[in-house]
Amino acid sequence: MKNSLICLSVLGLCAAAHAQSSVTLSGTADATLTRGTGSLTSRSGLGSGGNSTSKFALRGTENLGGGLSALFWLESGFLIDSGSGQATSANNQPGGTTAVSGVTFNRRAIVGLAGPWGEVHLGRDWAPMYDAYTGRYDPFGVGVGIALNYSAGITSQNGAVRVSNAVGYTTPKVLGGLSANLQHWAGENPSGTATGRDGTGHGMRLNYDSAAVSAAAHWGRTDYAAGDAVYRALAASYNFGPAKASAIVNHDSQGVLASKGWLVGGWMPLGAGEVKASYSRHRSDAAGEPTAKKLALGYVHNLSKRTALYTTLAHVRNSGGARQALNGATTGPNQSSRGFDLGIRHNF
Amino acid sequence: MKNSLICLSVLGLCAAAHAQSSVTLSGTADATLTRGTGSLTSRSGLGSGGNSTSKFALRGTENLGGGLSALFWLESGFLIDSGSGQATSANNQPGGTTAVSGVTFNRRAIVGLAGPWGEVHLGRDWAPMYDAYTGRYDPFGVGVGIALNYSAGITSQNGAVRVSNAVGYTTPKVLGGLSANLQHWAGENPSGTATGRDGTGHGMRLNYDSAAVSAAAHWGRTDYAAGDAVYRALAASYNFGPAKASAIVNHDSQGVLASKGWLVGGWMPLGAGEVKASYSRHRSDAAGEPTAKKLALGYVHNLSKRTALYTTLAHVRNSGGARQALNGATTGPNQSSRGFDLGIRHNF
Amino acid sequence: MKNSLICLSVLGLCAAAHAQSSVTLSGTADATLTRGTGSLTSRSGLGSGGNSTSKFALRGTENLGGGLSALFWLESGFLIDSGSGQATSANNQPGGTTAVSGVTFNRRAIVGLAGPWGEVHLGRDWAPMYDAYTGRYDPFGVGVGIALNYSAGITSQNGAVRVSNAVGYTTPKVLGGLSANLQHWAGENPSGTATGRDGTGHGMRLNYDSAAVSAAAHWGRTDYAAGDAVYRALAASYNFGPAKASAIVNHDSQGVLASKGWLVGGWMPLGAGEVKASYSRHRSDAAGEPTAKKLALGYVHNLSKRTALYTTLAHVRNSGGARQALNGATTGPNQSSRGFDLGIRHNF
Repeated sequence: MKNSLICLSVLGLCAAAHAQSSVTLSGTADATLTRGTGSLTSRSGLGSGGNSTSKFALRGTENLGGGLSALFWLESGFLIDSGSGQATSANNQPGGTTAVSGVTFNRRAIVGLAGPWGEVHLGRDWAPMYDAYTGRYDPFGVGVGIALNYSAGITSQNGAVRVSNAVGYTTPKVLGGLSANLQHWAGENPSGTATGRDGTGHGMRLNYDSAAVSAAAHWGRTDYAAGDAVYRALAASYNFGPAKASAIVNHDSQGVLASKGWLVGGWMPLGAGEVKASYSRHRSDAAGEPTAKKLALGYVHNLSKRTALYTTLAHVRNSGGARQALNGATTGPNQSSRGFDLGIRHNF
Repeated sequence: MKNSLICLSVLGLCAAAHAQSSVTLSGTADATLTRGTGSLTSRSGLGSGGNSTSKFALRGTENLGGGLSALFWLESGFLIDSGSGQATSANNQPGGTTAVSGVTFNRRAIVGLAGPWGEVHLGRDWAPMYDAYTGRYDPFGVGVGIALNYSAGITSQNGAVRVSNAVGYTTPKVLGGLSANLQHWAGENPSGTATGRDGTGHGMRLNYDSAAVSAAAHWGRTDYAAGDAVYRALAASYNFGPAKASAIVNHDSQGVLASKGWLVGGWMPLGAGEVKASYSRHRSDAAGEPTAKKLALGYVHNLSKRTALYTTLAHVRNSGGARQALNGATTGPNQSSRGFDLGIRHNF
Repeated sequence: MKNSLICLSVLGLCAAAHAQSSVTLSGTADATLTRGTGSLTSRSGLGSGGNSTSKFALRGTENLGGGLSALFWLESGFLIDSGSGQATSANNQPGGTTAVSGVTFNRRAIVGLAGPWGEVHLGRDWAPMYDAYTGRYDPFGVGVGIALNYSAGITSQNGAVRVSNAVGYTTPKVLGGLSANLQHWAGENPSGTATGRDGTGHGMRLNYDSAAVSAAAHWGRTDYAAGDAVYRALAASYNFGPAKASAIVNHDSQGVLASKGWLVGGWMPLGAGEVKASYSRHRSDAAGEPTAKKLALGYVHNLSKRTALYTTLAHVRNSGGARQALNGATTGPNQSSRGFDLGIRHNF
């Protein structure tokens, strides 16, 4: 999205009083034909965000002098196939997710300060555990090709991707590319009750980013009286010139139930576009050890820096009683499922 | 709205990388005093969109070279009398309309490509069946004067005005003004069930637009296990210099229940404004053939190209057991109803 | 917010046709660490709008010539701690407030005309009764320091702050600073029923604003079959150079139940910031005369004209059976409560 910002300029009349004022309005409109097939039902239709989540954002920074700046970022996901918005969570707890379809700033709503000492955010923000599953390490990240270890994680993903009521700190980069992110989020239940800490958690992430190598390691935990959710992952990518390869390993748990996953992926330029592939596995230690394996292949054809056509094919094999299915299809235990996306993504 | 676009210019800092970037932010704020009377209850208050629906839109195009361009359009209706948003539909089925009052892009959410070969849209879009009922052929189109054949159509208007999960194609204009629109929309129910095709449909429209004459013909169908909804209409207008006249004929059905309607309308300039009038009839073939006839008279006084004051008077006569009423009033079978709007419309 | 407007300039391509077009996009991102303690439960977390409500607004004016202008203002509150929107009310009645978390224009949605004769607004607008409780007279106005006479008013605050379905008129300033605001709002229930006027009301406010003195007096009433809500208040502030002092007295009632409140407050510059303090009391004439007294102390440190760090401490003492508590804590009858905010506010 960085390559497609629309900056709103300041009117002459305002410029005197607000020389630093600027709001950036940007977003993505991404629609895809989707089809999913399984042993029980199949489903065809139009989906949103097969290559990049449909969204719009208002954001800006203000130079406060002395190396200090203020920032805000309000980002709202929407479904382009129906025009509906997406829910957010008031308290990082399962019941706290409001199932409305009005637009919310579900993807980010922060205000913060940045300086030579790093950056502080307050509000609803990406969790430290999110980075490893983004398009930086998963060649797909969204759509039918998304890694299983992320999409088929433990039951409650509350607090794994984005967290409300959060205070986060990110260090500046040191040692040629090393940085850390620390975050605390509050469930805001009344104290002194059994569920007083439900939805409260904290996490951290280490990143290393150089020209060729990127790596992320995270650990996070959200408290629940019914069993804490704990997230751990390592992710790395290597850009060896003509292509890029990546790997993710994760181990998540909620209470006594744990799950493990891994992914290997790759990107390779092809003409005006890029070929992408990933293979991922997810295994739960529930009875029977339900396991799903996924192969995804995709091609993105760039019409410009902002606009691309894309297609993705994915195939899931289930065992141990698992019944993962793609694009809204349903499949029986140990049956496979296929999915297909064909879409257009436009950044604005 | 074309005459009131606000274009957001690109900051110097961004211009280099995004020479083509532009987002248009436009909309309408329209509020009206309303009153409706019937034989049972009357109702007074403030309404939204008496002359043009209150809305805002984000949209833009990108020149991709070679005659090709990418486009997006996100449009959100709202009620200016309460500030609430409007619901959209996830699946074009009665139960799929979420009754929330948060803002959604209920009016349009598309991404597409345009070229010399025409234009393709993916997302939530105007149905092919919408054009005949807009202000192009109905002098009112919204507000208390709206044609009965549209507002009192068959039970389910899902899929008659806007459709989600849609893929549409519009041809370029040929033969001095002829174009066609083809669209398919998906209900996205799982396959292999009795309602597997509920909400799925397709439609087409032919348009002819020359300096003096405009015409539209549409046919569309949305599948429902309980009875398909089928829409058919012809509409035409003729601009004979000092004034413009129009007519619409429609025949819609859902399962075995059909309804027919027609409208004749006219526009005439008067000073800085315009006088509008329409007479419309709607008859259902349900028991007793409930029938409603409506006369609407209006005046729009332009304060500028963007801003107008307006007033509309409407009278409905019911027979055959019909009890259509205006502006929130209720009336008994075969009783009449009157309605009144007095408002201001401002495009931004 | 006036000091932080972002004005969107008009592209050259559009300028010819829309020389007067302009939309202002502005807002506030305000997040605060909050803590509340009471005798029963305490609560910690992140809050939104401790110094100024988090919001964004689209607004603009159009010069119509002859001293006349058109205006619109769409303003949406949101919670930055979760990214959710805020509900609005369709009919100014308790049941008419839709508890959705999608974004709505709950704070303002108006279109209007302004001229030498004053200003007319149609839509959802500030009630005449709001001004006395804003930051003009209450040093806090929002957050943990807000005056008790406002936050602990009569049961139904519908129609006390903002009203839907409203028509309002504000006079120009005369006699060196005197103006009046008159407003009518509709509940829009059907006529002829016992609750036919529920939610309908009207109010007026007188303002006087000179260099040193500001004053407001309001009276308003919203009809309910269960007992009309009546609002009365006087507020004044005096700026004596190094500091500013204010006072508010109010008397509200709903049916036979009345409540009285008062506040004294003050502002004093301190370095790059400002110290604020208020003491307020609220007493209901319900059985036992439940009474709450609140002391609030705050400091706002300006990092720029647009951005500030702030902190507020508040303490409530209850008697007569009252159990007012702060920041989500709960406290027993006649027990006290404390609250604390520490946050950042950024206008954009």
